[in-house]
Amino acid sequence: MSLNNIRIVLIGTTHPGNIGSAARAMLTMGLTDLYLVNPAKFPNAQATTMASGADSILANATVVSHLQEAIADCHVVIGTSARSQRTIQWPQMDARECGEFIAEQDYHNKTAIIFGRESSGLSNEELELCQRLVSIPVNPDFSSLNLASAVQVIGYECSVAINHQQGDASHDNVKRQLVTTQEMELFYQHFESTLIELRYLDPEKPRLIMRKIRSIFGRIEPESTELNLLRGILSAAQGRKFLPRNQRNDKKTIN
Amino acid sequence: MSLNNIRIVLIGTTHPGNIGSAARAMLTMGLTDLYLVNPAKFPNAQATTMASGADSILANATVVSHLQEAIADCHVVIGTSARSQRTIQWPQMDARECGEFIAEQDYHNKTAIIFGRESSGLSNEELELCQRLVSIPVNPDFSSLNLASAVQVIGYECSVAINHQQGDASHDNVKRQLVTTQEMELFYQHFESTLIELRYLDPEKPRLIMRKIRSIFGRIEPESTELNLLRGILSAAQGRKFLPRNQRNDKKTIN
Repeated sequence: MSLNNIRIVLIGTTHPGNIGSAARAMLTMGLTDLYLVNPAKFPNAQATTMASGADSILANATVVSHLQEAIADCHVVIGTSARSQRTIQWPQMDARECGEFIAEQDYHNKTAIIFGRESSGLSNEELELCQRLVSIPVNPDFSSLNLASAVQVIGYECSVAINHQQGDASHDNVKRQLVTTQEMELFYQHFESTLIELRYLDPEKPRLIMRKIRSIFGRIEPESTELNLLRGILSAAQGRKFLPRNQRNDKKTIN
Repeated sequence: MSLNNIRIVLIGTTHPGNIGSAARAMLTMGLTDLYLVNPAKFPNAQATTMASGADSILANATVVSHLQEAIADCHVVIGTSARSQRTIQWPQMDARECGEFIAEQDYHNKTAIIFGRESSGLSNEELELCQRLVSIPVNPDFSSLNLASAVQVIGYECSVAINHQQGDASHDNVKRQLVTTQEMELFYQHFESTLIELRYLDPEKPRLIMRKIRSIFGRIEPESTELNLLRGILSAAQGRKFLPRNQRNDKKTIN
């Protein structure tokens, strides 16, 4: 499945700002196909303002007067719903399952995701045109999800699932090149000898402190430059006695 | 981990409507703890309008003038970032990993998630106060995620992960109780003064080394006993000059 094959359908949107916010949310998630069924006001300056640069989504949006027109060429139709529908048992998914379900679709299957009115959601007639329902898990005591936020979360789940499926091609995480176990062992040896010189560690009973040190520094998973920094500090802690200037400072401090 | 222990911190928010939208997004996901660092306008009627019923979040929001105040009692601090930071390698997570990471925290560990300015995000100084970074995977050609949308997605991932975990009865991992940010700051101060005494660090130009130290030790996420161990070592490195016996050894070594 490709993000290009997902269509967002907004039905009877009252506030044009919500259309703009939804367009912005779509484009951040790589969705571009927007259908508007009977929007109260569109085109509209407030929609453009709230789109915040996602003008292309609004410019290419298709306005229709019936849901049927918006989904006629679609293969899969999913309705968003605030709560599980009790009257008729549609297959129901949460947002994550929805993203995974869509990602598993064949590349050629166009999928529509339908969002209802801000106040009342989808009518029963509209629900009947859906094959499946998706709901976003929300706080049961405050379930008032903004329309554009719902588009954002569903779009996010679609984007994550599809990108994941495509082998994380767009995942631009910088990989850290960690040091080898051998280099870490040399670091621990250096650490231990420094602690002994500092008289922090009794060489007769070194075990427990070094186990703790290993537990702490094992979490760092350092790169080479970082390990060099730490070893430089150890050397500085050891090296003071070889620096005559420090010696003089020491004397002043003591007397 | 509980949703109650997650704090959302918004820094320098320009548009009060975004504060309201963020509050609404928080409450839909069950998050209630909001800190505002130097908001441009707050309280504000537009914030209340956009909160759309999430008034309690705004009424209980804490306004502070420095990020440090917002995170002093937190154990885990996560900064949101639009892109991976290349200069210094903080541990980086995507939104899903972030939710799972937070869900795995001990119940007592308070976690702050920091969101930067609408225009410019987090400054380098603010990033340095974070132990980890999270970014939401976005369309590389249009990454302009609205502030409240970012809060919505991160909050959604936290909510899903925590609710998932709480359904997992057999979760008997031993949780680590981490130190607070304030204790870590005292540790870094101790570290810096020690490095200056060791002449490893030039007090005129301390920045880069301490940034690296923060990047390295931020990963440790220590418990109290571990931080005490590290501070004990720092004290030992400092304390040599107060030990006449060491002094005598030093003289022998040099001459």
